Amino acid sequence: MSPKLALLLVTLSLHHYAHITTASDPDPIQDFCIPNPEFGVTKLAHLTILPCKNSSEATTDDFVFSGLKSAGNFSESGLATIPVNPIVFPGLNTLGMSFVRADLKAGAVNPPHFHPRATEISYVVQGSVYSGFVDSSNRVFARVIEQGEVMVFPRGLVHFQMNVGDKPATVFGSFNGQNPGSQKIPSAIFGSGIQAELLEKAFGLTPKQIGTMKRKFDPKR
Amino acid sequence: MSPKLALLLVTLSLHHYAHITTASDPDPIQDFCIPNPEFGVTKLAHLTILPCKNSSEATTDDFVFSGLKSAGNFSESGLATIPVNPIVFPGLNTLGMSFVRADLKAGAVNPPHFHPRATEISYVVQGSVYSGFVDSSNRVFARVIEQGEVMVFPRGLVHFQMNVGDKPATVFGSFNGQNPGSQKIPSAIFGSGIQAELLEKAFGLTPKQIGTMKRKFDPKR
Amino acid sequence: MSPKLALLLVTLSLHHYAHITTASDPDPIQDFCIPNPEFGVTKLAHLTILPCKNSSEATTDDFVFSGLKSAGNFSESGLATIPVNPIVFPGLNTLGMSFVRADLKAGAVNPPHFHPRATEISYVVQGSVYSGFVDSSNRVFARVIEQGEVMVFPRGLVHFQMNVGDKPATVFGSFNGQNPGSQKIPSAIFGSGIQAELLEKAFGLTPKQIGTMKRKFDPKR
Amino acid sequence: MSPKLALLLVTLSLHHYAHITTASDPDPIQDFCIPNPEFGVTKLAHLTILPCKNSSEATTDDFVFSGLKSAGNFSESGLATIPVNPIVFPGLNTLGMSFVRADLKAGAVNPPHFHPRATEISYVVQGSVYSGFVDSSNRVFARVIEQGEVMVFPRGLVHFQMNVGDKPATVFGSFNGQNPGSQKIPSAIFGSGIQAELLEKAFGLTPKQIGTMKRKFDPKR
Amino acid sequence: MSPKLALLLVTLSLHHYAHITTASDPDPIQDFCIPNPEFGVTKLAHLTILPCKNSSEATTDDFVFSGLKSAGNFSESGLATIPVNPIVFPGLNTLGMSFVRADLKAGAVNPPHFHPRATEISYVVQGSVYSGFVDSSNRVFARVIEQGEVMVFPRGLVHFQMNVGDKPATVFGSFNGQNPGSQKIPSAIFGSGIQAELLEKAFGLTPKQIGTMKRKFDPKR
Amino acid sequence: MSPKLALLLVTLSLHHYAHITTASDPDPIQDFCIPNPEFGVTKLAHLTILPCKNSSEATTDDFVFSGLKSAGNFSESGLATIPVNPIVFPGLNTLGMSFVRADLKAGAVNPPHFHPRATEISYVVQGSVYSGFVDSSNRVFARVIEQGEVMVFPRGLVHFQMNVGDKPATVFGSFNGQNPGSQKIPSAIFGSGIQAELLEKAFGLTPKQIGTMKRKFDPKR
Repeated sequence: MSPKLALLLVTLSLHHYAHITTASDPDPIQDFCIPNPEFGVTKLAHLTILPCKNSSEATTDDFVFSGLKSAGNFSESGLATIPVNPIVFPGLNTLGMSFVRADLKAGAVNPPHFHPRATEISYVVQGSVYSGFVDSSNRVFARVIEQGEVMVFPRGLVHFQMNVGDKPATVFGSFNGQNPGSQKIPSAIFGSGIQAELLEKAFGLTPKQIGTMKRKFDPKR
Repeated sequence: MSPKLALLLVTLSLHHYAHITTASDPDPIQDFCIPNPEFGVTKLAHLTILPCKNSSEATTDDFVFSGLKSAGNFSESGLATIPVNPIVFPGLNTLGMSFVRADLKAGAVNPPHFHPRATEISYVVQGSVYSGFVDSSNRVFARVIEQGEVMVFPRGLVHFQMNVGDKPATVFGSFNGQNPGSQKIPSAIFGSGIQAELLEKAFGLTPKQIGTMKRKFDPKR
Repeated sequence: MSPKLALLLVTLSLHHYAHITTASDPDPIQDFCIPNPEFGVTKLAHLTILPCKNSSEATTDDFVFSGLKSAGNFSESGLATIPVNPIVFPGLNTLGMSFVRADLKAGAVNPPHFHPRATEISYVVQGSVYSGFVDSSNRVFARVIEQGEVMVFPRGLVHFQMNVGDKPATVFGSFNGQNPGSQKIPSAIFGSGIQAELLEKAFGLTPKQIGTMKRKFDPKR
Repeated sequence: MSPKLALLLVTLSLHHYAHITTASDPDPIQDFCIPNPEFGVTKLAHLTILPCKNSSEATTDDFVFSGLKSAGNFSESGLATIPVNPIVFPGLNTLGMSFVRADLKAGAVNPPHFHPRATEISYVVQGSVYSGFVDSSNRVFARVIEQGEVMVFPRGLVHFQMNVGDKPATVFGSFNGQNPGSQKIPSAIFGSGIQAELLEKAFGLTPKQIGTMKRKFDPKR
Repeated sequence: MSPKLALLLVTLSLHHYAHITTASDPDPIQDFCIPNPEFGVTKLAHLTILPCKNSSEATTDDFVFSGLKSAGNFSESGLATIPVNPIVFPGLNTLGMSFVRADLKAGAVNPPHFHPRATEISYVVQGSVYSGFVDSSNRVFARVIEQGEVMVFPRGLVHFQMNVGDKPATVFGSFNGQNPGSQKIPSAIFGSGIQAELLEKAFGLTPKQIGTMKRKFDPKR
Repeated sequence: MSPKLALLLVTLSLHHYAHITTASDPDPIQDFCIPNPEFGVTKLAHLTILPCKNSSEATTDDFVFSGLKSAGNFSESGLATIPVNPIVFPGLNTLGMSFVRADLKAGAVNPPHFHPRATEISYVVQGSVYSGFVDSSNRVFARVIEQGEVMVFPRGLVHFQMNVGDKPATVFGSFNGQNPGSQKIPSAIFGSGIQAELLEKAFGLTPKQIGTMKRKFDPKR
């Protein structure tokens, strides 16, 4: 075997078993499992979990996350989110939790979305936020919640937020899963390439209207 | 205590503990647990699981479901679904599975929806069905599947179907949960009463356009 | 290190961690995890799950299975089964479900067996099938089920089927586990090499009778 | 309402919700949950779990089981088992474990059986016991184990034991489930009422031979 | 039956099945399950979960908790905690999450403790808090964390906090379990009534020293 | 690539994916998964689970553990424990159980400790053992248990044992987790390096007293 092939095989090996590790969210069977930073760079693009360090090499900093001190980058619409999972915070790996900081400028919206694999506890750090979710019989549960209040969004149900105050709002959300996932309805439906005919029938819209929506949420824009 | 109050209390008791039993989908810890039909009538409206029979009173018929032999009632849009869970098929109770028969007339659509609590295996009994799902990075996986083919929709992800043949299509779907739940995107978003302003901002539509959508999916219509 | 040793080690590595990945059936923590086909050939003999692709390399065909359109190979006794798990249908990997197509010629039998790790939903696609299971107090629940009917076999309990019609029967079974396993009673008991003396005592049979049974289910025949 | 009807309804209520509680084996969400002895007598026949005490009424004795100090009642074949679950040992309730003491006279057999819902750790307290299990490819793993040795029987797989010493043997088995269930192959297959024709075909035996087996394991004998 | 006895039986019924419901923390099998407030008063003393409302009677307020806006009652030592579980916040019921607000005066300590049934995400709302945990090889992971930083305490491991700033500190902790439980080491060990002799040997202390500790953490003081 | 680098990479590969495998304790999805002994020596120091053999290479001896026939090495205080997990008994891997033998000389103590990830069933093989646990409201449940008696210690709660007879005592404990973990209170609290000031405040002890305790449980002694 040429050394090059050996490298290839080894790389594939590292590359792939890491994927394997991302496939479960069960009870831990050890105290913790800190991903190994040596392999981090090349895999950050597509991994949700990295291979692990020998536990004696874990450090206190592996269990502390400092990246929430200020807001993330705001989108054009006034929303900034910092989702925190084991890629950026290794200490979470295998422990069945993750979290997010969301900042909304006055009037900004966190569009209807849901997390396929977790319940969310949403704690308002500052501001006044119209918050709610829809249950599976299409009933909405929504109202304005203020600084210090907490709302719970049950696992898998569509929910949304809008800053109805005149100052910025900050929300801290935590999840009972290390990779809850997220589907934003507008872009999942209109920006993902579902056949136009199906969308026309499902939403009762004209081909022209669907075309407009598809352009609006085209991921290439 | 008056007999009337006794009746009231007992009724509350029966009424409520049944709700409690619906709150988990774990491994079974007994062979099975057949709901008790004596209490069925008054509670069908809001229960997903009924109280159970003594196991020696279970019969073979508790474990056989015969209601899928023909299609259900078609909606105006040409879709007929028969979801089967422990309310209508007691033998499923506590066993972590349920299923559905869906029939689509030529050209009919099963709109984008997702099941918050289960993966789905979709088996085409007859017909040609454009089927697909969207992953959490907004990539669509979709194509036409034919009689005898099977597609899997991962837990919690948006999926959809359209009969692209010129004959009726029938699909048998099974779930790894006894109450997978379902959120149909068009009605969950536009028919549930989310504030119009939030929807306008999330979808980039005018108040008039949102108003039209809301009327279209108003549950009272 | 010689390149040969390197190859050996790498091969062992690939060989073994794949085994590791098969050891759990929990909630998924990502949308899906498609096994990587590059490693498929050499490992098909003993693996139940393969290492995974980068999610951006997954294709629609990974989530569609087309191998159930016709019956599998019939045994001498008239039974043909096509069990479908992540080895042959990569899209199932980590999603907690699998399925099977079984065809029985007129009069053929699917002998008493059980699945150690799943409940089964059995849907009759065509034919008349005497179907049933035994609970852990040795009560049998069995009757003939017809086309379009569904029977549920609770997790881990012995069940069986026999085509009692005069035409071929086809059954579609789905499981709430990606590798439910299966133990066929006749061959697990008499064809596995359990000491004859123990079997004589357990079944109250003579050494000669046990000898006959052992020859009948000898896996080398 | 007549008091009699009130009694009936209340009784039904107590009777049935208790069944409900037996349907899951998940992680506990409280320290413990001791069944309430007041309701014990009338329900022992068919319940696996009883309703619970207020936790402040739990006593140390609820968590200690003293019924394993000597062997249980021996069957004609020389086997005595004392299965211990939450009915007889309330402290086990909701904690995901149970256990059994088995005594075998010299030469006695614990026939091939399996537990649908648990792995078993089998510890030999005294004696020499031929022990083994069959995996799902029909391979047997069996040998004699001696006092102080431990064998593990994986969840759901057929296993068996025979005392091959000339003195009594005692085994302590523990399970990772509070109600593991058990199916003894000889009686589940031949003593449960499965149609004779199916058994003839499955085992390749004559009607006469199957008739003999059925009489041997008839539960009424 | 006398009405009084009927009342007694009904009360027992309500009283006990509620206990039963607290015994699992699995995936939900419905959108949510709001406890019914009608039964709340008499059972608050010993229940962790209450019976549930018909889902159509749930209101938005069931899913919002407003009791964290200010600190709870401070103990003599300067610690105030508000643990939030389904008793005080019904919307959490069955959803696998709960949370806590802890306030520490300058120099105050949250003594070493652990949660038997959950991982904790600890978010510093204000202040400087020395925080840490001990793993099962007795290694400590601890440092000062500041406003906006997050530390994770793995499931079941001993952890602790001390306000090392000169202003009050506030921490928001969330758990992946609806009833994580808590054992404070000083009072669980020295205030629970474990035999003095055992403690003397375990800690290498004199009878007099153990006596002092026992008086210090006597729950009656 | 130099062969040395190849070795390094391969070693890292083996080293790390093995860690990954230890991160879950779910239902098995195959019959068993025997760790591969070829890799055993170099990894025993920090691994809890090893990579797996091809299932056809598993042998009966993989499922039998013979190391409990006599007591382990006694500590100075008269306690000897042999914890058995998948490192020393490969057959346990993925099956959700493990066990321990503990021997206590007359008067010896098993100090207050808890297992973060399992319930324990404790069976007294010989002797008289004062045994107990503390619940999360600081109530102790403790008494002397004799040969043949069994006590259950609920998941995650502090428990302890002391031989109160005048002969050696032997206990067989089994767990519903393959790596239950253990935190011994005296050494976790005083031997792990928690800041002295925090301990002084938490236990109400003087700096001098805390210093004495820290020296007593210093892991370097």
